Amino acid sequence: MSLTDVTAAPCDPEALERAIAALEATFGDRLSRKPGIRTQHGHTSTYMPNQPPDAVVFTRSTEEVQAVVRICAAHKVPVIPFGAGTSLEGGLNAPLGGISVDLSGMNRIIAVNAEDLDVIVEPGVTREDLNAYLRDTGLFFPIDPGANASIGGMVSTRASGTNAVRYGTMADNVRNLTAVLADGSIVKTGQRAPKSSAGYDLTHLLIGAEGTLGIITEITLRLHGIPEAMAAAICSFPGVGAACEATTLCRQAGIPIARIELMDTGCVQAVNAHAGLGLPEQPLLLLEFHGTPAGVAEQAELFGELAAHVGGSGFDWVERPEARSRLWKARHELYFAMQTIVPGKRPIPNDACVPISRLAECVTETAADIAASGLFGPILGHVGDGNFHVALYVDMDDADEIARAEAMLERLSERAIAMDGTCTGEHGIGQGKRRYMRREHGAGVDMMARIKRALDPDNILNPGKILPD
Amino acid sequence: MSLTDVTAAPCDPEALERAIAALEATFGDRLSRKPGIRTQHGHTSTYMPNQPPDAVVFTRSTEEVQAVVRICAAHKVPVIPFGAGTSLEGGLNAPLGGISVDLSGMNRIIAVNAEDLDVIVEPGVTREDLNAYLRDTGLFFPIDPGANASIGGMVSTRASGTNAVRYGTMADNVRNLTAVLADGSIVKTGQRAPKSSAGYDLTHLLIGAEGTLGIITEITLRLHGIPEAMAAAICSFPGVGAACEATTLCRQAGIPIARIELMDTGCVQAVNAHAGLGLPEQPLLLLEFHGTPAGVAEQAELFGELAAHVGGSGFDWVERPEARSRLWKARHELYFAMQTIVPGKRPIPNDACVPISRLAECVTETAADIAASGLFGPILGHVGDGNFHVALYVDMDDADEIARAEAMLERLSERAIAMDGTCTGEHGIGQGKRRYMRREHGAGVDMMARIKRALDPDNILNPGKILPD
Repeated sequence: MSLTDVTAAPCDPEALERAIAALEATFGDRLSRKPGIRTQHGHTSTYMPNQPPDAVVFTRSTEEVQAVVRICAAHKVPVIPFGAGTSLEGGLNAPLGGISVDLSGMNRIIAVNAEDLDVIVEPGVTREDLNAYLRDTGLFFPIDPGANASIGGMVSTRASGTNAVRYGTMADNVRNLTAVLADGSIVKTGQRAPKSSAGYDLTHLLIGAEGTLGIITEITLRLHGIPEAMAAAICSFPGVGAACEATTLCRQAGIPIARIELMDTGCVQAVNAHAGLGLPEQPLLLLEFHGTPAGVAEQAELFGELAAHVGGSGFDWVERPEARSRLWKARHELYFAMQTIVPGKRPIPNDACVPISRLAECVTETAADIAASGLFGPILGHVGDGNFHVALYVDMDDADEIARAEAMLERLSERAIAMDGTCTGEHGIGQGKRRYMRREHGAGVDMMARIKRALDPDNILNPGKILPD
Repeated sequence: MSLTDVTAAPCDPEALERAIAALEATFGDRLSRKPGIRTQHGHTSTYMPNQPPDAVVFTRSTEEVQAVVRICAAHKVPVIPFGAGTSLEGGLNAPLGGISVDLSGMNRIIAVNAEDLDVIVEPGVTREDLNAYLRDTGLFFPIDPGANASIGGMVSTRASGTNAVRYGTMADNVRNLTAVLADGSIVKTGQRAPKSSAGYDLTHLLIGAEGTLGIITEITLRLHGIPEAMAAAICSFPGVGAACEATTLCRQAGIPIARIELMDTGCVQAVNAHAGLGLPEQPLLLLEFHGTPAGVAEQAELFGELAAHVGGSGFDWVERPEARSRLWKARHELYFAMQTIVPGKRPIPNDACVPISRLAECVTETAADIAASGLFGPILGHVGDGNFHVALYVDMDDADEIARAEAMLERLSERAIAMDGTCTGEHGIGQGKRRYMRREHGAGVDMMARIKRALDPDNILNPGKILPD
């Protein structure tokens, strides 16, 4: 299977027309067949070809989502949920055609339960909107995948990002979900109690299912108290291996670090060129510590000592918010910085995750592989979780470069899996990584396929994603 | 459905005999039909009638479990996994007869990966054995449900206990599982990477499934560093409501408390009578703080201030291990203490969990309900999670007392569910709580049943558990 091979066999055109007519009767001008709208809803932040849905319906409630699914189920027409459109692995494409359900208008924050440290939201709420809303409560929602993704999309891809090393991923921060299943039934997967032993864990089954088992229409999230004190730090290393070793030491020492981000030399050069930051052009770790003032000082000092053991230099930590922002500016500008230094190339994002004991080895081998492949591919990542990204910049008109990129990415996924890791720590499978599912999960793929068939026998919910053909 | 109604319709006797003959040919004297062994394997720490399996097989490996399941699947005979026999809700009974698979001999600790803070174990390892094995590593496995349960059983009931408020439940501390499914296939649910977005979360699907979806044969658990400092504390309150309010304040203030256990006046009287502890005979909280020495002092002082706001008195905290043990002695002796003050009665354990904001209300109403019912039922619990237990002592020969207990427990489960809580925070559903599944989960029960049918179409894995008829 090629990197850009997303073969399509469209659903029955007559059934599709009947479904669209029924949807138009219900939703009126909240259904669109305009090419621009359709293309936008197949759009993903990826290199894969756009496969637009046949129509887009803008829903306002769980019951409206149920109405869409019932009509589509009756005609066996695919339904693809859409949140903010920030999917990286083709999760929003419509390879068989069908209906995109745009949930972005379902963006109400239904209830903040400050005493219980939870909040109930609709799926279209974005993480930035949620945190802006929470600003005066002393609470925050920590999961930060970078993009201003919708909460529904973050649930569906089991997203994580920079804060996961301390606060966990979406798998750790969802109390319960409401979802519309393929048969149109509405299921609430749990209660608001902090824990439960009452039956199968439907919540975690839907987290990371990428809309293939149900369409999520309401989410209860855990919240966290804003820490009393925060400090940021930066530390340079002689190589990516040493930076990874410092990360491993930090985790083993039990430092409850909030963020620990790797940028390799290529990343540092890019942000220096873009933003004139004057950072030493060698791999670095960007860190953040959360806690009480005394606790933050303890953590930072201990980290500095550990980093020095593996050649860390220039360790510096700051508590003032402006100084913290200055340090994190480098990380936040990375995407734009890299775009400008390789004009005309597209980034193919990649996302591997390995046990922390294998991180230095995996990153070092990958860096050597990128160099040997003659490609430009800076490495960055949320290394506290063993998770790193290669942003491989490829000229999509250069068949030879595409082929080298495909081969290198294939080796990366196999390397991570062979180290008891995964081909995706946080981006999801979508269309892009279905080819690795069997290698990573073996007979587990058959177990997943049986669950999918039991819950969606006509394969109408986001078909062509996650499970290999 | 009555409290002790566990109706049985045995499997086909001829098929059963053929299965047992095939198992005997494979396992020889590691298969037993002795009445004592059979009764012991249906035995559960509960009030429910014993429903023994027809035979018990003692397995030594994943492949042997696979052999048992294949033979039983071929003859459509039930298979019930058995670990340490500490189930509280009838999870080990064999209402349809069948084969108990005793996994207690699969008790090897396969690998400790100290760098990755994880360990790979077989299901028969008990939590005490695991922590004894880890003693010299500086690491520990924190989940403590009280009983010296097997890790496999703890996974299967999604167990938690006293430390869950800080370290999470089994749902938060399992990296991946190996399991034998009903068709005899062997599935590994994940890798050792700290996180993954690669497909459906089969790990969490099996956690809490009580052996109804697969038999767990290998477990990778997360470990934690033994904290540098620990302190224990005790604090008395004018009523259970005030003790719960102090708990809520502590959680909201973000104190990373390690343990916070409620004992009501009845519990305190029992341990005083049993162990002569001389504690003030009013509700109390037992607490434990983990962290750095400075952090522990910060936590304890902040808790003391919060408790005083709601009438807490006699707050005292200690760091020395012997002094800590003295305080926890009260909690650990509770089970024996209560047995001695109500001779001839059996405890019917109960286990509700509600959002922390409803805890004081739920516990106060429940205490009044117990009193109004004329029953002896001390309340204790892991209140930091909103989780509490009623140990209802009932004379099982007194039909009127049983009826009052049934009615009171029914009201408790309904009260918890109505408060957006659950009928079980950590004991599981087993046979005892199937009657509440529909009330708690609504259409979610149908979703669970579809998953069960897809993975176990002949209903051979621990039938009669979790799902209502």
